[in-house]
Order: sequence, then structure tokens, then C-alpha cells
Amino acid sequence: MQILLLAGDGIGPEIMVEAEKILAALALPVTLDRALVGGAAYAATGHPLPPETLAKANAADAILFGAVGDPRFDAVERHLRPEQAILGLRSELGLFANLRPAKLFAGLEDSSALRPEVASAIDLLIVRELNGDVYFGEKGMRTTATGEREGYDIMAYSESEVRRIAHVAFRAAQGRRKRLCSVDKANVLETSQLWRDVVIEVAADYPDVELSHMYVDNAAMQLVRNPGQFDVVVTGNLFGDILSDQASMCVGSIGLLASASLSEGRQGLYEPIHGSAPDIAGKGIANPLAMILSLAMLLRHSGGDEASAARIESAVAKILADGCRGADLGGSMGTAALGDAVVAALNG
Amino acid sequence: MQILLLAGDGIGPEIMVEAEKILAALALPVTLDRALVGGAAYAATGHPLPPETLAKANAADAILFGAVGDPRFDAVERHLRPEQAILGLRSELGLFANLRPAKLFAGLEDSSALRPEVASAIDLLIVRELNGDVYFGEKGMRTTATGEREGYDIMAYSESEVRRIAHVAFRAAQGRRKRLCSVDKANVLETSQLWRDVVIEVAADYPDVELSHMYVDNAAMQLVRNPGQFDVVVTGNLFGDILSDQASMCVGSIGLLASASLSEGRQGLYEPIHGSAPDIAGKGIANPLAMILSLAMLLRHSGGDEASAARIESAVAKILADGCRGADLGGSMGTAALGDAVVAALNG
Ligand SMILES: CC(C)[C@H](C(=O)O)[C@@H](O)C(=O)O
Ligand SMILES: CC(C)[C@H](C(=O)O)[C@@H](O)C(=O)O
Repeated sequence: MQILLLAGDGIGPEIMVEAEKILAALALPVTLDRALVGGAAYAATGHPLPPETLAKANAADAILFGAVGDPRFDAVERHLRPEQAILGLRSELGLFANLRPAKLFAGLEDSSALRPEVASAIDLLIVRELNGDVYFGEKGMRTTATGEREGYDIMAYSESEVRRIAHVAFRAAQGRRKRLCSVDKANVLETSQLWRDVVIEVAADYPDVELSHMYVDNAAMQLVRNPGQFDVVVTGNLFGDILSDQASMCVGSIGLLASASLSEGRQGLYEPIHGSAPDIAGKGIANPLAMILSLAMLLRHSGGDEASAARIESAVAKILADGCRGADLGGSMGTAALGDAVVAALNG
Repeated sequence: MQILLLAGDGIGPEIMVEAEKILAALALPVTLDRALVGGAAYAATGHPLPPETLAKANAADAILFGAVGDPRFDAVERHLRPEQAILGLRSELGLFANLRPAKLFAGLEDSSALRPEVASAIDLLIVRELNGDVYFGEKGMRTTATGEREGYDIMAYSESEVRRIAHVAFRAAQGRRKRLCSVDKANVLETSQLWRDVVIEVAADYPDVELSHMYVDNAAMQLVRNPGQFDVVVTGNLFGDILSDQASMCVGSIGLLASASLSEGRQGLYEPIHGSAPDIAGKGIANPLAMILSLAMLLRHSGGDEASAARIESAVAKILADGCRGADLGGSMGTAALGDAVVAALNG
């Protein structure tokens, strides 16, 4: 398997080093390649997703992605900002299905901002659509009739876009507790009305899955009130962005949440859901576990290697149960020490 | 002062009765009128916001609003659904500034889904723009080039729309702890970029207020992780809808959160942030406190009667501190009993 490593900006490079340690420790038959992405690529080449990087991404079986985002480039034109690299990869590679699992690790009951009894019930999967919505519609600045500046973005979903993500979500629910909650804002948005109509149509193919619908405002509330009520949640690009970050706090730290972005085939991009965290970059204190768990998802989904994926996940669970904690969880272990602990647990 | 009571659907009428008890107990010199709204109006007249209701609303100094939404009408055309009544009132009356305060009442430290130490630090005000964004842009269903159905909604903000809500938020911050956090998604949306640019421009008029910016995904996370970090939050219509519902859980129950929707003048509409809760309607178990606290906001903002507003708020705080709890907070007091308890506390 050909894996492209895209470390990116901020803490991306330091956490990528730890994922590589795990790959080395597992001694799997993979080929690694690297390329520049995000602010690092913009600084070197003038573009956050240079053609060479895109070509390597297209050729790879799987991409392990760190993070992009660099405040030094906040003022450059939108299409050249670091974030455009991840948006470009998602759309160029047709990575429409973003899987974001959230589960409380044993030993972290007291790390969640939620009460332990609320937090320990969390075991959910957010399936976020990643190629459409207000992210990819026409957008721009225009001048109104009265001569004012106006910013606009078109939110839209077509039938086929909703159908393919709905199938992914229903199938995921079949492999779990067979409950799917579709989140939208159909009382206000036509985009959401189409979303809801199509999800209901697709449900006919999955009589074994119990489907429910929830408005996004209520979902944001329920995710704090009683996150244990959710099994699989399927939603659009924007609502998925918000709800999955929110869910991360329920499990103690955003530094623990991995994600897979999948296309119709086996190719996928795997990344922590956290960002580049420029404020702590280079200090050696970033939590590498979301990155390492993203590698596990890569091996499972693109590599078909469930055994290695499960081995990594058990090792991470073990070190957390043993009390290993980085700064994000109120502990003092640094990035490298956490990676080393996972390696030791893999071998132990 | 002329107050229009719009009880609406679901639990709206039962909680409105309790607000009226408070008004009666205070014996204020107000004139009350009533009109149909939402599903109740649609059922009786064929329109959720009949011309007569709108005329009365225009003429009133303030509107006390229950809730709208009735699943019996989920399938009617969008412009005739119950929710259109509140959207119509907000836009027809130019109610662009929605104030949603969230603070933990003493005695409810153990009712929040958050840990007591996290929850007790909450004292924030969400200032939500209410007349623009993807709520009020052009929207519809269209057919794509390939013959598919597509739902779309245009998200947009103009300079003047952002400027007027920013002024409201900065002034609110001046009257509080002087910190304002503007929430957007400027790394993806042009609407957000304009939002951020204009908020920064307006900041020049308020050198005493400390301004920060946060992406909405991060804000949803921070609101769980450490809500105590926020003083005033200003955001657009859609993000404000999501974040304010989320914040409600931090304070124990959505049945405790009131809101004011204000125009440039003194006229305002006051409503609980919860919905019509059709599942518990008619059972006499709905929490009337958000409705009663909305009346307090009405007296303060539209009536200029700070004393009565503070008296109501103290009475609500007292009964909660005394252990009065409805079903939403795990207690057994019904709607009427809670209203009666507030009246007793007012007089006591
Ligand atoms: C960096 C940003 C464009 C991105 C998004 O909004 O999708 C990030 O927040 C994420 O969730 O992966
Ligand atoms: C009923 C609905 C249209 C409304 C909204 O989305 O604004 C509600 O959720 C609210 O927050 O007042």
C-alpha cells in the first residue's frame, strides 16, 4: 500500500512523526511518500495544494493528513489560504463521506466537561457529507443596489449527493446499533427539505435501521444533554463541522478524535479532527493520539487491515487507561513521550 | 404600555397563562390584547401569520410570544408552516437583534449536563442577528442540468446588516464584562469574511471592549469545554440558532432561557428560546419559567421598568434556590404550580 504523508502546518509535522513511529513499529509492508500542503506549501511554492502534491495524492492508496492553517496567511486571497488545501483534496479526490467516531475511552470519565454519567454513555459516529453544501457552492463579494458590500455563499444539495451519503450512513448504522439520526434545518432551509426527503427515500432500502430526524439546533442541545441517545448521525457539511467539534469535548479532548474521508472506492484521507493549533506548535506538547488513531482508521478502511487497526486502538486505550495524559488532558506527557508509550503498548 | 400576547402552538398557551398570572400579580398599568399565530392561526384562518395578527403586532409596544410549531402541518407548503409566523414577525417588524442570556441559577449546579465547576462559571449573552443570513435569502427547489432535484438557499450579509448588530453587541459588552467574541466561519464562507471585516471596522468605536474572533466549530466546542470564558458572543442567524440552543443545556434546561428580539426602537418581541414541545403539550408539565423570564425582559427593554424586571428575576431565582423543580429538571411541579410559586415569591 502506497501512503502519502501530508504533515502540513502548525502541530501537523510533530504529530506526524509519532504516527510514523507506529508504522515503523508495526513493520507493515507500506511505501511512504511525502509532499507539501497548506501554509507550508504556499510559503514554498505559492500554492497551498501544489500540482505535484495533488498528483501524488491521486496516485496514493491512502493519505495521512496532519493539519493546515496558519495565521500568517489569514489575509491572503481565499483561494490561496492554507485551508483551501484540505477543501481542494476533499473535492478533487471525491472524498464525500467523512466518518467521525466519538467514544469515551475508559479512564477519561473525569476528563469530559460533561458529568461522568453523561459522558460515559457516548458511543456515536458522525457521518458528515464533505463535497457539497455551502462549502462548495458559488460564493463571493458583491455590491448591493444601494452600493454596499455584501458577502454571499450558496448552500445547495442535489438528490444524488444526499443519496450517496445516506447510503454510507445507513450501512454504517447496520454495522452498529442500527439507529440513524439525520440532522437538518428543514423548518427553514430548502436544502434541508431536499436532504430530508431523500434520506426518507433511501430509508426504504434499510428496513432494519430505525431512522429519526432532528433539527440542528436541537441536535446541538441533545449532544450536550444526552449524547448517549445517538448511534449514527448523518448530516451536511456545515452542520457536521459544528456538531463533530462539539462532540469532541464530550470525550475529553479534541486531541483524541480521528476521522476518515472516503470516496466511492477504497482510497481515503485520514486526519485528526483538530486543527493546526499554531499557539502550541513546535513546543512538543501536542497530543498525537488523534493522529495515531487516524492511522488506525487508514489501515482499516484503505488497507483492509483490521488486525493492525485494532492493535493500535487497543494500545491507545491501554495507555489512557494507564493514566498517560498530555497537556490537553491536564497531564505532563509531551508529544514524543505519548507516541513512545503507544509503541511500548503495541509491543507489550 | 400595549402588550400583544401571542400564545401559539403546543405548550405556548399553557405557559402564557403563567406569564399572565405574573402580570396580574404585579398590577402594572398595561393593556393586553391577543391574537392567533402559528399552527393555531393556520388552522383557523389558513395562514400562520394572518393580517389581523400582523396589524396588532405592528401597533403593540411589545409582543409576548409563546411558541409555534405543530407536526400536523409539517407537510404543508413552506410559506404556510407554523414557523413562518415567527420568521414573518421578525422580518416584518425589523426585529434584527436577538438577545439570549444564559446564566446558571444558584441551586442548579447539579442540573447541568456539564460538571458543576464548569457550569457554575456560565454567564454569557448571545447576540444573534435575526433578519438576514441563509434564513432570509432566496431559496427554493430547482432541477440541475442532469435532471436532478436540488434544494438551495442563499446565505448573505450586507455591511449595514452586520454593522447594526455589531453595535448592539459592543454596547451590550460595555454594560457587562467588556469582552466580545464574534463567531463566524471566515475560513470557508465569504458571508463570514464580510461579517468579520465589518465587526473589525465597528470595533474602532469601542476601544474599551476587547474583541476576539472564533470559528463556529471551535465555538461549539469551547461552549462545552469552558463556557465561562465567554461574556458577549455575537453571531449570525444560523450559527446563533445552534449555539444558543446548545448553551441552554449548560444551564440545566432549555425551559429556563428567555430571549428578546429588538428593532432599532423600543418595540420588541419576547419569547422563550424553546419550541412548542408538542409531545408534552396539554399535560400541564411544561416549564413556564422561560416564558416568565421573557416577560421580565419585556418589562426591562420595551417597558423601561427595570424594577419589575428585576423583581420577577429574583422571584424565579428564589423558587429555584428553594428547590422548586418541574419535570425538565427532574422534579414533579407542574406548570401552574411553578407559576403560583413565582407569584408567591413576588409577594413574599
Ligand atoms: C479547516 C476547515 C476548512 C475544516 C472544515 O471546516 O471542514 C475543518 O474545520 C474540519 O472540520 O476539517
Ligand atoms: C422555529 C425556528 C424557525 C426558530 C429559528 O430557527 O430561528 C427557532 O429555532 C428559534 O431559535 O427561535
